[in-house]
Amino acid sequence: MNTDTTIASISTPPGVGAIAMLRLSGKDAINICEQVFTPTKQDKILSKQPPYTIHHGSIVDGNKIIDQVLVSIFRAPQSYTGEDMIEISCHGSTLIQQQILEVLIRSGATPAQAGEFTLRAFLNGKMDLSQAEGVADLIASSSEVARKVAMNQVRGGFSGKLAELREKLLHFISLIELELDFSEEDVEFADRKQLLAVVDSIAEQTNQLLDSFKLGNVIKTGIPVTIAGKPNVGKSTLLNKILNEEKAIVSDIAGTTRDAIEDTISIKGIAFRFIDTAGLRHTTDSVEIIGIERAYTKISQALVILMLIDARETAENCTSEITSVSERLNNDQRLIIIVNKADMVSFEELETLTTSLKNTFTNNTIITMSAKRGDNIDLLTNELVTDYLKSTSSDDGVIITNARHYESLHKAMENLERAKEGINNQIPTDLLALDIRQVLHYIGLITGNISTEEILGSIFSKFCIGK
Amino acid sequence: MNTDTTIASISTPPGVGAIAMLRLSGKDAINICEQVFTPTKQDKILSKQPPYTIHHGSIVDGNKIIDQVLVSIFRAPQSYTGEDMIEISCHGSTLIQQQILEVLIRSGATPAQAGEFTLRAFLNGKMDLSQAEGVADLIASSSEVARKVAMNQVRGGFSGKLAELREKLLHFISLIELELDFSEEDVEFADRKQLLAVVDSIAEQTNQLLDSFKLGNVIKTGIPVTIAGKPNVGKSTLLNKILNEEKAIVSDIAGTTRDAIEDTISIKGIAFRFIDTAGLRHTTDSVEIIGIERAYTKISQALVILMLIDARETAENCTSEITSVSERLNNDQRLIIIVNKADMVSFEELETLTTSLKNTFTNNTIITMSAKRGDNIDLLTNELVTDYLKSTSSDDGVIITNARHYESLHKAMENLERAKEGINNQIPTDLLALDIRQVLHYIGLITGNISTEEILGSIFSKFCIGK
Repeated sequence: MNTDTTIASISTPPGVGAIAMLRLSGKDAINICEQVFTPTKQDKILSKQPPYTIHHGSIVDGNKIIDQVLVSIFRAPQSYTGEDMIEISCHGSTLIQQQILEVLIRSGATPAQAGEFTLRAFLNGKMDLSQAEGVADLIASSSEVARKVAMNQVRGGFSGKLAELREKLLHFISLIELELDFSEEDVEFADRKQLLAVVDSIAEQTNQLLDSFKLGNVIKTGIPVTIAGKPNVGKSTLLNKILNEEKAIVSDIAGTTRDAIEDTISIKGIAFRFIDTAGLRHTTDSVEIIGIERAYTKISQALVILMLIDARETAENCTSEITSVSERLNNDQRLIIIVNKADMVSFEELETLTTSLKNTFTNNTIITMSAKRGDNIDLLTNELVTDYLKSTSSDDGVIITNARHYESLHKAMENLERAKEGINNQIPTDLLALDIRQVLHYIGLITGNISTEEILGSIFSKFCIGK
Repeated sequence: MNTDTTIASISTPPGVGAIAMLRLSGKDAINICEQVFTPTKQDKILSKQPPYTIHHGSIVDGNKIIDQVLVSIFRAPQSYTGEDMIEISCHGSTLIQQQILEVLIRSGATPAQAGEFTLRAFLNGKMDLSQAEGVADLIASSSEVARKVAMNQVRGGFSGKLAELREKLLHFISLIELELDFSEEDVEFADRKQLLAVVDSIAEQTNQLLDSFKLGNVIKTGIPVTIAGKPNVGKSTLLNKILNEEKAIVSDIAGTTRDAIEDTISIKGIAFRFIDTAGLRHTTDSVEIIGIERAYTKISQALVILMLIDARETAENCTSEITSVSERLNNDQRLIIIVNKADMVSFEELETLTTSLKNTFTNNTIITMSAKRGDNIDLLTNELVTDYLKSTSSDDGVIITNARHYESLHKAMENLERAKEGINNQIPTDLLALDIRQVLHYIGLITGNISTEEILGSIFSKFCIGK
């Protein structure tokens, strides 16, 4: 991990725009820039300018003027990386961006690796590892909730939670430390009940964090929703109404939607991945059979299943249809029953059907609508977001979105369980201390108190260049 | 042209990157930013900070923190637009960019039109119109020479040339002004010979500028080069060697390359558009006939024609082949003869053929090579760039690249010619003055001394948003 070099890169999105920005970080950042920068005010010496100031001039390559630019100066440790930094904003031609980068490299800078600026921020103690990972998530965030969770992580929400756990663990260790000092005398200073209570409280918090991953994981990638139902019941029409644009093929011929079509939309800030499926019916068409098989696969992958039935069907048929899907679901999957084509039956007929369904499927939400006319689409979208909005609305509710964090917490949890068992089985104090130190180890892996080049390499390689 | 508003836009290239930047310009720029900015140092009041300084904090929307950002302050008239300006650099998520733009607009900013920042710079006298147009060219520049010419234009090289012309025109007018004052007395204060000399000198400079457009125009879009020759003579192989990658289809079957394939590469900073063509031969294949017709069309559009002949052919055949192409060319088109497959004949045979060709085509460069082996490719690329490098290498050589400028100069030239004729025909002084004022008018259109909303609208609509 060489931080002696001064790194440079183009930091704005690739391509042509009005303005682009390059960054330099490292002990020679200001010197390197000075070599290629001609200030508009000729007597201005860049290296003598105060930090957090901006200077107009040209980037030159020998006699050639590459571009007129603004140069911003930051000095260690008051910068993103904690090192001396320079930001150069230039005209957004890709050629100019490239030429400036080249002249910086020729003047002594090293091309930055993906995430290297943030890696340096971490190494220089400007942020912990989970905050650094939050930066990557923040940049990648494409829904409001994902942005919010990442922002909370960058601002140290998760780190704070981990600090709490850490403190409790250290408290636990302090309780048993005295015993270890006097271990040969076989005395028991720490009340076992009290120890158990502390471990329980730590385990509870850890479990909460672990539980949040189920939500956190889908927040990043979008909550998978499958629309199921018989052919021609209006699945594509419903999807289109929700998507508000014609991305799925809609047709009157039964079995038209043979391929599962995916589309992600953000509803009230939460990303949903909508999966349209082939109709669920018996068929001899071999292509369509594959489609139906895929539909069942999609159902198994979804967290929310929108089960469409035709209001003109008998209650009996509907019940058997819904059951055939609902019996395949696990506890994490939510089935919403949508009685479609409600405009094609009388009010009484509709009432009879829904009452019957309500009595059979007591745990499921039932919505009647005409997807074609767009009735009650709002009711449905509200129903979709409610659960997730609740879980993500409190600002202090920390949500884990990162598989690496989940894994570490999971390992921490295993050791907590072992410690609990150990207390109950009255194992020797030093073994107990070992378990708790393991928990501290795994939590340290998340924040980066403990880190290896391998871990850092795998984390920062996923960043974009220039961050 | 409303400049009372404060405009805002995302100014970095579209998409996701490490960093993105938004800009605000107008009298409320700092106030609007202050409404949505919470500085990290709480007692810092943004509007009281000096210009050219940078401030860390958060962009907020009510209680919601959108992102942690850096805010840069510029004050009128020391800014790009000449107005108060704010630059916000944020994390490069498209969602975050969008949310910040939205909160700025809700706080009173107007979304900027394409080129509106530069339009304001022009309206506020920060640059003339030709410099503003240079900014757009600079951003679009994709070859070194295009960048250099645009940079020269932005820095006022062309404007300086026009100022020279203008000065000479005003000198001319001052010479005949006295006569106009005494017009009723029918005296001739200005020496006609002197007047003619002044007009001649102006016309000469104008003509130089007009001539430069031929080069300037192709600098922007790339110099069109056609590779011509019989089937299987190695046209695709040559193109591939030059492109250094396999973009054209190469095959041993005669007549394979039926479609003209275009590819632009930058050689020593000059962009060339290479056009591969179907082989020029007699054929009965109808698809191929179309291809050959297209080849002749492409030849007519090219500025440089690389005429490939097979070293194994007789001098007579080669001469007739070359003649069939060269007789179709006009004076602006350059024919380079390439004797390919030189490795398949003896040194003596090659010598005989090239000597014969040199005697017949005295004005053309002749290069022998084996395209397959890559011999002498350097010789060819050097030959290609020489002419253009010469014309563009001097820093003070102003080159017109803009069709609008060409048109205005052309109109100016027409009036200069009329003035010249007028002097020779001893037309009345007031008519002479009218012609010269027309010339001043057309030059004023280029720099924007004279402008209409229509002209400005058409110029700035071609800019990217945020510039």
